[in-house]
Amino acid sequence: MQSIEGHLPLLSPLHAVLAPTGIAVVGASADPTKRGYKAMLGLIKGGYRGDIYPVNPKAASILGVNAWPSITDIPGTPALALICTPAATVPGLIAECGRRGIKGAVVLASGFAETGEAGAALEAQMMKNARAHGVRIIGPNTSGVFNLHHHVNLLALENLKPGDIGIVSQSGNMLLSLALEAQYNGQVGFSTYIGPGNQADIGFNDYLRYLGEDEQTRVATLYVEGFRDGRKFLDVAREVTAMKPVVVYKSGSTEQGQKAASSHTGALAGSYQMTVDLLRQAGVSVVQYSDEILPVAEGLGRLQKAAGKRVAVIADGGGQATIAADRLAEAGLTLATLASDTQAKLDALLLPQASTLNPVDVAGSSDANPSLLAQCMAVVADDANVDSVFLVGMFGGYSLRFAESLLGDEMRGAEAMVELAHATRKPLVIYSLYAPIKPPPLRRLHEAGLPVYASIEHAVRVLAALGERGEYLANQAAQRTKTPMQPSVNGKALFVNAKAEGRDLLEFEAKALLAEHGIHVPDERLVRNIDELGAVAAEFADRPLAMKVVSQAILHKSDAGGVKLNLVGEAALREAYQSIVASSHAYDPTATLEGVLVTPMAEKGVEVIIGMLRDPMFGPVLMFGLGGVFVEVLEDVAFRSLPITRADAESMVKQIKAQKVLEGVRGGQGVDRQALVSLLMGISQLVDAYPSIRELDLNPVIAYPENHSLGYAIVDARIIVERDQ
Amino acid sequence: MQSIEGHLPLLSPLHAVLAPTGIAVVGASADPTKRGYKAMLGLIKGGYRGDIYPVNPKAASILGVNAWPSITDIPGTPALALICTPAATVPGLIAECGRRGIKGAVVLASGFAETGEAGAALEAQMMKNARAHGVRIIGPNTSGVFNLHHHVNLLALENLKPGDIGIVSQSGNMLLSLALEAQYNGQVGFSTYIGPGNQADIGFNDYLRYLGEDEQTRVATLYVEGFRDGRKFLDVAREVTAMKPVVVYKSGSTEQGQKAASSHTGALAGSYQMTVDLLRQAGVSVVQYSDEILPVAEGLGRLQKAAGKRVAVIADGGGQATIAADRLAEAGLTLATLASDTQAKLDALLLPQASTLNPVDVAGSSDANPSLLAQCMAVVADDANVDSVFLVGMFGGYSLRFAESLLGDEMRGAEAMVELAHATRKPLVIYSLYAPIKPPPLRRLHEAGLPVYASIEHAVRVLAALGERGEYLANQAAQRTKTPMQPSVNGKALFVNAKAEGRDLLEFEAKALLAEHGIHVPDERLVRNIDELGAVAAEFADRPLAMKVVSQAILHKSDAGGVKLNLVGEAALREAYQSIVASSHAYDPTATLEGVLVTPMAEKGVEVIIGMLRDPMFGPVLMFGLGGVFVEVLEDVAFRSLPITRADAESMVKQIKAQKVLEGVRGGQGVDRQALVSLLMGISQLVDAYPSIRELDLNPVIAYPENHSLGYAIVDARIIVERDQ
Repeated sequence: MQSIEGHLPLLSPLHAVLAPTGIAVVGASADPTKRGYKAMLGLIKGGYRGDIYPVNPKAASILGVNAWPSITDIPGTPALALICTPAATVPGLIAECGRRGIKGAVVLASGFAETGEAGAALEAQMMKNARAHGVRIIGPNTSGVFNLHHHVNLLALENLKPGDIGIVSQSGNMLLSLALEAQYNGQVGFSTYIGPGNQADIGFNDYLRYLGEDEQTRVATLYVEGFRDGRKFLDVAREVTAMKPVVVYKSGSTEQGQKAASSHTGALAGSYQMTVDLLRQAGVSVVQYSDEILPVAEGLGRLQKAAGKRVAVIADGGGQATIAADRLAEAGLTLATLASDTQAKLDALLLPQASTLNPVDVAGSSDANPSLLAQCMAVVADDANVDSVFLVGMFGGYSLRFAESLLGDEMRGAEAMVELAHATRKPLVIYSLYAPIKPPPLRRLHEAGLPVYASIEHAVRVLAALGERGEYLANQAAQRTKTPMQPSVNGKALFVNAKAEGRDLLEFEAKALLAEHGIHVPDERLVRNIDELGAVAAEFADRPLAMKVVSQAILHKSDAGGVKLNLVGEAALREAYQSIVASSHAYDPTATLEGVLVTPMAEKGVEVIIGMLRDPMFGPVLMFGLGGVFVEVLEDVAFRSLPITRADAESMVKQIKAQKVLEGVRGGQGVDRQALVSLLMGISQLVDAYPSIRELDLNPVIAYPENHSLGYAIVDARIIVERDQ
Repeated sequence: MQSIEGHLPLLSPLHAVLAPTGIAVVGASADPTKRGYKAMLGLIKGGYRGDIYPVNPKAASILGVNAWPSITDIPGTPALALICTPAATVPGLIAECGRRGIKGAVVLASGFAETGEAGAALEAQMMKNARAHGVRIIGPNTSGVFNLHHHVNLLALENLKPGDIGIVSQSGNMLLSLALEAQYNGQVGFSTYIGPGNQADIGFNDYLRYLGEDEQTRVATLYVEGFRDGRKFLDVAREVTAMKPVVVYKSGSTEQGQKAASSHTGALAGSYQMTVDLLRQAGVSVVQYSDEILPVAEGLGRLQKAAGKRVAVIADGGGQATIAADRLAEAGLTLATLASDTQAKLDALLLPQASTLNPVDVAGSSDANPSLLAQCMAVVADDANVDSVFLVGMFGGYSLRFAESLLGDEMRGAEAMVELAHATRKPLVIYSLYAPIKPPPLRRLHEAGLPVYASIEHAVRVLAALGERGEYLANQAAQRTKTPMQPSVNGKALFVNAKAEGRDLLEFEAKALLAEHGIHVPDERLVRNIDELGAVAAEFADRPLAMKVVSQAILHKSDAGGVKLNLVGEAALREAYQSIVASSHAYDPTATLEGVLVTPMAEKGVEVIIGMLRDPMFGPVLMFGLGGVFVEVLEDVAFRSLPITRADAESMVKQIKAQKVLEGVRGGQGVDRQALVSLLMGISQLVDAYPSIRELDLNPVIAYPENHSLGYAIVDARIIVERDQ
């Protein structure tokens, strides 16, 4: 029912390592409590078809397989070595692997960089040897790997079913948890698992790339505590998500969680919200709770993506229809408005007491013929106003609840749903309260590729993920292209001067740069001498003016007494000028004053802020938010990796939680969103054209209503210059 | 491990009805698809020991039980009649029941008030007959009832296990869902179920009272779409929650859900947030998601309540420890700071790489002896800084994951946990990733009354509910007493005058009433004549003043141009006075102006609002929130039913999401919370003393820092007068 969008070329070196022609198990053991035994057992019981080379100086054979005293003694050249021995032995063994032509090693031992300085030195030594000999390292401190389609099971986990979900998990317990959930689920299975461990060599982005390329993997699933190279990961994620779904659970959503994470791995956690925003921008399906990982992965792997967020609910009980409506709204999904002919068709199918508004409540109509629910699903799936269909209630259990004789009809209903799933391009998401006991109609649905969820909450997360994925892929059609903006001579000169003087851009220079590239800035005059004020006063006539000090040394202009507002007439300007100069000198006697900026007071509107910074993890990132308490207290902001598409800019504005403010409070008009979107796009292009911009801050920008001639006013602008290294 | 706090006297008439000596099944049937067959089957298969009287004019016997042509023909007097016949027959049958001495009837039929006017008339007719004959009605439009300890199963649900969870659910599917979850769970069972249906006679508060009194019920669980008498429900809830836990899922958390609910029942949904706040105030454990109902009910029924919110996490994997830390923080729980001797004891038990900070990560220490986890739990349970213990990881699955030989040690670990649970007064909450496959150690725990959760998210909801319940019961020690405040002669006179003039209190009267009862109000002068301004100006010297129009007709003073701020000197006062009078007349030429209020400008501080209203559902309710965008845009407010305790007032202030504002932003100082708490208490007492207050609004109140002499300034006060009926 679901089709992968395309294929990535096979570039990853991991294919050879994870589907190896032979495997050396270094530290293979006959002691059943040892990993070196477990791995041997996993390979043999898993039916691994390549050569197995146990390495153990004290044993002639392990589990009936000839053993070798050292890696050097191995007669063949396995593609992969599993190293089960303690940390101190690893650097030497890696060198030995390299000399023997082994291209990849999985290093289980802990005691490396995660433990402190001595461990970090050992890890560096291991990596030095690995690079010298061309050995790629998975780990160290990894829980291991498996590739079930190639019968490679180095974890010796039992009851694993080969399937299409690939997993990379920084937590071994999380893998175990997913494996047990899958065992209980009965239908989902796994392709490849990789525990990245310390990521000394290979990191998340390489593993994601591999899962993206792997033809056995339909959904890539990642449990992440921290990235090593976030920007690169986003690049890979964009490529992979264009082909197949990527599900990420990112831990550290709270300070308490971040602290817990950093106490047990060496990885940098980063800001949770920024990370999530950037992952979503790259098309990743981010789940918020750990118990949603498998349901969402299963749904994204099995079901059609949804073209949008309009859901039709078919329910056989009002209470659960209400719960579904609540959860859908909370997840940002809407109840589709059914077309009148859809309602007419439903009316014809259902009893008079049924509700054919959405949620559709069949109200007993299906009690004697549960397959009616499939007919209702087909009717709403045919409605152009509907993006996805959500069945809620007791389907699958009618024969248990009412009469055994209903089983036949219920099985026919299940068949009809399977047929509908093949015929329609819309996802059918099924919640049944009978899911925990798996009666035959539900087993049939599940086997045919229609997951049956046991929780309304999980089913709604799946609907949301399918809708988000559909919208993402549709927006991808509008390509993310590099900006055509070229730096100008004047623009470049501003940076040359600032760098020569070892300073950042002054406010008027920052605004001049924006203006140079077609971004509207308020009319303003730089006044370097009190006697120029007469002309300025005359020019602006009786408009109230603002005056601000211009000095590289004074960042917080208000604190320095460097801002005066609502000035009318030359006398007021002169008085303000003198006051600003005096206060600024008092504030910082060493500051050089470049003059003052005089500008008409901005009209009232909605305060927003736009900022750009170069994040150490993710590179250039744009932030958009509402000003005042919204950013200071509520952190109601949106982040995107630069450059952005128009769809990115639109989604940034839409993401702000206090939408009411943008829509206009107290009878005010809504802000001109398109003007803000254009401004965000302009800043994205500007940052791309001028790598010398290290940070940029437009704070505040006053956003105006749609009918306003300007759209917005940039009241203050600050650009920090990237010092040349 | 958990003990019920006490017992309620048996006052409910439902005991006789729900544990009936005999049952008439009106509309009993031999057709297996009919409810009249199912109910017979349920009674017979369930082992009901009383007399069963099938009523059916066309059958001599049903399922081997003698049938009777009519209720009148029944030879005995059953306590309960189950009415399975269509709506139109019900009023007559109820009268017949009454004449026959039957005290209670369960009416299944739909087609009553929920369908419109004709149905409402039928329902009224039914109730008239019921009252005339002293018959109590469950329903109509109910899914039925069961009382498993008395073998009464009128739903004929199979695989129900008698237990201690009582359920009242406005959704039959929700009951079914809980029953199937319980079947899968294997350990939880039910006492009584009641579907309240239309609540034509008996409503939620009666059912809750019954569950509160029922000795077989340890936890009362309710699925509620809407109440009939919310205030009474809160009264009953307070009584019941003092004895046993009450878990409520309230649907309609979103507008979309409220619309869905109102389209299928007649019940009024009310405001979700207010409802939840008031339920929690009454000690109810409100769950947010439907899949949390059973886990939370099980946990509250089985486990000790927690004295507070400080959780110690024992984990055998860092990833899940991190997830737990995130979820705990999101749920308002904290990681306990372990005492140094606790850490020392853990250090002695664990390997060097373990982390003995909280979350405790044993990091492999338990791989060879999983019972070590029980020892760790005992160590942290002994720490006075710890309120509850949370085991996270793979306990129960060591023998599956590592070596079968570990099973014995794991079973010993389970026994040690059971012993610890009996020995300690702190709850032990256990999450295991092996929960879905129920290995023997987990079965042992579960059978011994220690639930094992399969989701970290659900386990954390249980921890939160146990902590909230512990804190609630501790606060209950501080009794909710009626206020000693007596209305004063002056205070009463204000209402007498206002009522005589058919108006509400004027602003200065409202403030006078507050002042009369010791609530600080700003110094202010009512000026009725422009010539009084000279004296006022002199009195306030050079403090900047505010002037506001006083007129019953002008509610929105600013809109009418009736407010002037920052006035200094007599000239400014005179000019403002004239301007206010002119604008007010222009705004409403018919308005009578009582004068203007002159008061010193309030110092800057944090704007809060306090409001009281008489909710049609819940009666007098107090609201507290932050002013400005926080209330207008973010609806960041807290509600409590009046009167309030000091703990209620404190929790209102603590509930505000934007705590940062109360703690002080931009280096500002935190507000004086105790001053706000006293003000809230004062308003509660005032409203209690003056039933003539219909609504009260203090907006804004400026809250000051702790060292401020006043605590707060009530800038505006409005009191709407209750018109005598």
